[in-house]
Amino acid sequence: MNIQLLLTGNELMRGDTVDSNSAMIAQHLDRLGLNISRKITIGDDLNLLVSQLRELAATGDLLLVNGGLGPTIDDLTARAVAELVGAPLTEHPQAMEHLTAWCAGRGVALNASNLKQAQLPAGASIIPNPRGSAVGFTVRHDQCDIFCTPGVPVELRGMLKQSVIPAIARHLDPGQTRLIQRFHTFGIGESGLQQWIADELPDWPPEVDLGFRAGAPTLEVKVLSPQRKAEEHSLYVERLRELIGDYIVAQNEGNLPGSLIRVLGEKGMKLTTAESCTGGLIASMLTGQAGASEVFEAGFVTYANDMKERMLGVSGEDLASQGAVSETVVRQMAMGALTVSGADCAVAVSGIAGPSGGTAEKPVGTVWLAWGSAGDMRSVCLHYPYGRKMFQTMVAGAALDLVRRFLCGIEATPRYFRERRLPDTIQ
Amino acid sequence: MNIQLLLTGNELMRGDTVDSNSAMIAQHLDRLGLNISRKITIGDDLNLLVSQLRELAATGDLLLVNGGLGPTIDDLTARAVAELVGAPLTEHPQAMEHLTAWCAGRGVALNASNLKQAQLPAGASIIPNPRGSAVGFTVRHDQCDIFCTPGVPVELRGMLKQSVIPAIARHLDPGQTRLIQRFHTFGIGESGLQQWIADELPDWPPEVDLGFRAGAPTLEVKVLSPQRKAEEHSLYVERLRELIGDYIVAQNEGNLPGSLIRVLGEKGMKLTTAESCTGGLIASMLTGQAGASEVFEAGFVTYANDMKERMLGVSGEDLASQGAVSETVVRQMAMGALTVSGADCAVAVSGIAGPSGGTAEKPVGTVWLAWGSAGDMRSVCLHYPYGRKMFQTMVAGAALDLVRRFLCGIEATPRYFRERRLPDTIQ
Repeated sequence: MNIQLLLTGNELMRGDTVDSNSAMIAQHLDRLGLNISRKITIGDDLNLLVSQLRELAATGDLLLVNGGLGPTIDDLTARAVAELVGAPLTEHPQAMEHLTAWCAGRGVALNASNLKQAQLPAGASIIPNPRGSAVGFTVRHDQCDIFCTPGVPVELRGMLKQSVIPAIARHLDPGQTRLIQRFHTFGIGESGLQQWIADELPDWPPEVDLGFRAGAPTLEVKVLSPQRKAEEHSLYVERLRELIGDYIVAQNEGNLPGSLIRVLGEKGMKLTTAESCTGGLIASMLTGQAGASEVFEAGFVTYANDMKERMLGVSGEDLASQGAVSETVVRQMAMGALTVSGADCAVAVSGIAGPSGGTAEKPVGTVWLAWGSAGDMRSVCLHYPYGRKMFQTMVAGAALDLVRRFLCGIEATPRYFRERRLPDTIQ
Repeated sequence: MNIQLLLTGNELMRGDTVDSNSAMIAQHLDRLGLNISRKITIGDDLNLLVSQLRELAATGDLLLVNGGLGPTIDDLTARAVAELVGAPLTEHPQAMEHLTAWCAGRGVALNASNLKQAQLPAGASIIPNPRGSAVGFTVRHDQCDIFCTPGVPVELRGMLKQSVIPAIARHLDPGQTRLIQRFHTFGIGESGLQQWIADELPDWPPEVDLGFRAGAPTLEVKVLSPQRKAEEHSLYVERLRELIGDYIVAQNEGNLPGSLIRVLGEKGMKLTTAESCTGGLIASMLTGQAGASEVFEAGFVTYANDMKERMLGVSGEDLASQGAVSETVVRQMAMGALTVSGADCAVAVSGIAGPSGGTAEKPVGTVWLAWGSAGDMRSVCLHYPYGRKMFQTMVAGAALDLVRRFLCGIEATPRYFRERRLPDTIQ
């Protein structure tokens, strides 16, 4: 099946938006064993849209169009497709129904801009949008199935899962879909991990595809095999799991904070956070997950030294003699958070996010972490010499990973303790 | 000038990599007043590469090719361009010099894979790569200038700045660069804002381009004009500023938390946060900005009712009788945070992020916010019936915006108080 992609939007052409939608679409198709052969991106220009639609519909079996379904005048996809198929734009009853319900649900009036979103090429079938005002639609032209979806990523995601991918899958031979296993890892870089696997599993079979995708703070490792290689797939998934198991923080649709919440729930334990340099990011990553309230009751953002004393009972003397970025202080922060909140375990971080505040001894990127329970508190100093936001993201990731390792009883020293150590730090 | 972009790489087609390079290229061109008219992305396939190169070179004045210059066999750009222009691949002396120096600097031997990177189409000029092993190159074919650059973002960035963009700029009329003004707004949707501008500024001149870019929690409005329309540009930028001024939270490279930090700094005031449903996101947005420590010392994440009592002194009786999501409780949270932290102003939020926890009276998406100073505390109930993360993002945005309005003395009721009101809430 020849699958092509047409993305439209001036914001994409001007660089105002980084396109993450086509990667999302490609990943969904990948699981079905399908590839995109060509992707064309153009601005909001009706003539160009029509001519590209025409070329793509003539050369492919499936065309996925993304963007241009919004309420504004520069959203031209419906008009362009109508012109392509030679049908008028008409008010689609199901689209109207959706829009009316959508506006009612938000207590806003249906205005002229919104009404435009119900104007679809006659004969089109709608693709429901569970999240947003714009419905998608599908038409068939020149032996090519055309699916049009909106550019808002969260809307696209829902529509892909609920409608577009299932519709495509119905036309496929079941043997064509691929076996896929994804591991989310924390604490090893892509090249390091690739080398490790090459060294330890040199007989990795070529049909079992291994892919890496860098996210922050985690790195995703993907194992992808044809259905007919199910046995090799399972075998090498297990070998990989044995090799890098300590670094696997979640599988498939999971994620690091979600896994930590699950482990805490299984143990009936509560976690508290005491944050300086991450400024609330650790708490925010946890509470971004549904179910966080079962295991997380309180977090402390003690950005100033005074507040470390006042809210967490850190010793003013130690703050003055050791500095806020020190083992003594970060351990006191964790112990203080345990005392105030009554939680079972805590994680505390204090570091230098930059761009200013670094010294020769404690350069920008230095962070002390403490984690554990009142009777078993651990600590480490790491160094993430990145920009401010990436530093905060990686430190928050390390904080969650260290609590996860603690709760899961993983006692081996993680590789990143060695790699992330300041050259002259003795630990 | 018709500018087109050709991106190549299997990782782009499989969704393993999100393409940020084309946004980077587009932003550089935008500042010169240039647009990309079309962008084509394909996998590492020689025939497809040659046919796309041929079509793009025939239809445009400038073609930027990105990717496919690495050392591996699936890096095919030099070969495809050689085929296009009908020249053999030959060892380019400057490319060899670069490679030799690059390997020497890293103490590695020049191997066969690297040598491949010195094989360029005869007659090509090199584009120096200050960061990596692959030099870029440029050729002219069919009236079209073709620039080939490697796909590694940090290498591309250096080559764009040092060589590619200056080379393009040399051909331009200085009057061609454009005037750009960006406003970041909070609290009006794209369609509402477009309607408002159309109603109130119906004489908006067509040469002054108006663009919208939805982010979360803010919406960006961009005004873009040719140099020769400088007068209209200034005039309509000012008219727009007068019209939507209360909703403008930042300009150009700025952002909402950054603006709030600036205003707090100007007034010499400190802010504290008391968060329930946003779980640390407000604090995290503030501390994501450099300079936050000047105005933000402490934040409280009181996710459980107990912690609202223990950390902020909220009345247990009021919690029991009114519920955590109530005006009484959220005001007490804000007052408690002021008392404990000694800050000058506070913002507190308590709401139902979902997916569970909603009731008929307080459905998922309901949130109470309180903000202000000890002597002037305000509060409102809003309704953001979105998914969990989007709810948290919008509530955090509203929290920051309400403090901003408070500090800037904007007393007009924001439109979103009406739009975001629960149907049966009396305020």
